[in-house]
Amino acid sequence: MHKIVKPTLIVNLSTCKSNILQMNQKCKNSKVVFRPHFKTHQSIQVGQLFNESGINQITVSSVDMALQFASLGWRDITIAFPVNILQIDDLNYLASNIKLTLVVENVEAIKYLSRHLKHSVNLLIKIDVGYGRTGIKHSNTNVIDTLVKVIKSDSYFNFIGFLAHFGNTYNATSSNEIRQIYTISMGKILELKQKYPEAYFSIGDTPSCSVVDKFEYVSEIRPGNFVYYDAFQLNIGACNLNQIAATMACPIVAKHSNRNELVIHGGAVHFSKDNLKYEPYGTIFGLVINKSDSKIELEQGVYLKKLSQEHGTLTGPSEWVSKCKVGDIIHIIPIHSCLTANLMKENTIYI
Amino acid sequence: MHKIVKPTLIVNLSTCKSNILQMNQKCKNSKVVFRPHFKTHQSIQVGQLFNESGINQITVSSVDMALQFASLGWRDITIAFPVNILQIDDLNYLASNIKLTLVVENVEAIKYLSRHLKHSVNLLIKIDVGYGRTGIKHSNTNVIDTLVKVIKSDSYFNFIGFLAHFGNTYNATSSNEIRQIYTISMGKILELKQKYPEAYFSIGDTPSCSVVDKFEYVSEIRPGNFVYYDAFQLNIGACNLNQIAATMACPIVAKHSNRNELVIHGGAVHFSKDNLKYEPYGTIFGLVINKSDSKIELEQGVYLKKLSQEHGTLTGPSEWVSKCKVGDIIHIIPIHSCLTANLMKENTIYI
Repeated sequence: MHKIVKPTLIVNLSTCKSNILQMNQKCKNSKVVFRPHFKTHQSIQVGQLFNESGINQITVSSVDMALQFASLGWRDITIAFPVNILQIDDLNYLASNIKLTLVVENVEAIKYLSRHLKHSVNLLIKIDVGYGRTGIKHSNTNVIDTLVKVIKSDSYFNFIGFLAHFGNTYNATSSNEIRQIYTISMGKILELKQKYPEAYFSIGDTPSCSVVDKFEYVSEIRPGNFVYYDAFQLNIGACNLNQIAATMACPIVAKHSNRNELVIHGGAVHFSKDNLKYEPYGTIFGLVINKSDSKIELEQGVYLKKLSQEHGTLTGPSEWVSKCKVGDIIHIIPIHSCLTANLMKENTIYI
Repeated sequence: MHKIVKPTLIVNLSTCKSNILQMNQKCKNSKVVFRPHFKTHQSIQVGQLFNESGINQITVSSVDMALQFASLGWRDITIAFPVNILQIDDLNYLASNIKLTLVVENVEAIKYLSRHLKHSVNLLIKIDVGYGRTGIKHSNTNVIDTLVKVIKSDSYFNFIGFLAHFGNTYNATSSNEIRQIYTISMGKILELKQKYPEAYFSIGDTPSCSVVDKFEYVSEIRPGNFVYYDAFQLNIGACNLNQIAATMACPIVAKHSNRNELVIHGGAVHFSKDNLKYEPYGTIFGLVINKSDSKIELEQGVYLKKLSQEHGTLTGPSEWVSKCKVGDIIHIIPIHSCLTANLMKENTIYI
């Protein structure tokens, strides 16, 4: 048994495994490639679980993360982020060692790569099908055609297709709404597919990959968050409680019974400042769970209401507060497991 | 010259030095101890600057940070956080090696320490003078008297006094308002001081330490944020632009001229998700600066309006956007330098 004495991320590997198997099975049924995003966990151990499930193609969100996982033996990596041309030296190193896929969305970056790359790479064009963060609007086929033409003029480039992220599913408030956003976005993918019927199409936000039963029209999916899930995904209906694989354990350091509050060691440097409107509580920074049984249950009315750098303030019904003691460990579902796991890299235990 | 190719925190050591000298001089003039908080920078190099200015008493916010700075040679450390009794082994290690000051606010923790500490420590009682995060309300003298009595009954404990944090100054919207909160809080300190005239009083939020010219009635101040400052402190009037010592450098990876937006590599894993209502922009995640001259100037109308894990979205006037190119580096003042510096530990350069 691990003795927890300070803020610690507890990753339940059997829950991760079950989340992976479920998503992998759905991909097999749908005949799409499963290329999980590793930005959520950034972990050797969780990476190993994917590997054991027969997965050897992965997604990362930065050149540094690609270097990290390449050094751990992963040989087929997509950096799902508009290429940062300033890291050309690292890109050349990666391109010479692994099967590297980059994402582009402007002529400047493609021309820069063309001048400075010393090894061939796969290229995907980033398209925007409604999220509005980045990428070329799917209907802007003039620009897309130009990019494809520029790419095809360089023999170092292997143009494979298009990458999109339906990030607006994160604004949904129900699984039904997620499905609608998925369908609208997929309609736009199909419009582009009519023009580029042979192209590879990569999508893969966790909300839609979780609620859609069968993937059609695309070549691969690349969700990441699903391996841990979190309070955000729970709230929008993308997962259930028993799929939550990463929780924070934090010691109680002070008790304020008069206002039904507990202070924990666990703040913004552990959880991140991401928060969530969660009815009827209002804005919350985490949900408290009861782990006395083998399954997870939410502590009714208990939540993390405030965070400063190292302090967290919990509130709950007076009966619950009165049972808690200074030195007890409280278990909390983080709002956004990607950001929490990133902060807790050095303080994670696997059970 | 450092070649910046990815999100990087740039710390200007001469600005840090000048911030330190100014605060140190104010402490000397006021005859109070200067015990800077090291949670903001957590940096060997910045620690060295304090050391060179003759400072050898420091504050940290966790046992782990105390261990880190003890290993770097710091010998007088206050952990300004309600003691986490579960870390008793590390506390014993620290107490046997350095002059350690702990903060307590409940009988349970004091009794636990009494049973398990093997070396003597200084104790400060955490009091609440209006912030409402944690500590015993200053007027709750029955509880305070009890704690003092319990502390004095154990010879391992050296009761020295009280610690308060005027954290509500962070809610101020002007330097005038900061001064008012300071005065109200100081009034409460004085009420307690009448009962405990010999006690040591420690205070020290950056907003009030920055705007108050002379510290009266207290024994020490322990600001931390002031060494870097940030957009938050700038906005509430606690610093000016030339005191900003830590800025983020981020590469442009995409350009969306049609909506006056740039996408940078620089997201929540670099800046943190802390944000700020900044008029007339609304909610912002960072302010963009022009560093072409030796002094810092704000780029008018340009700000970081959105962050996801690795992406940042900048917006600005079309003339500014049109001058920017993919591959350029943008310099940004973070909202909360403590959280940004914590995330950027491995990617900081000192100039």
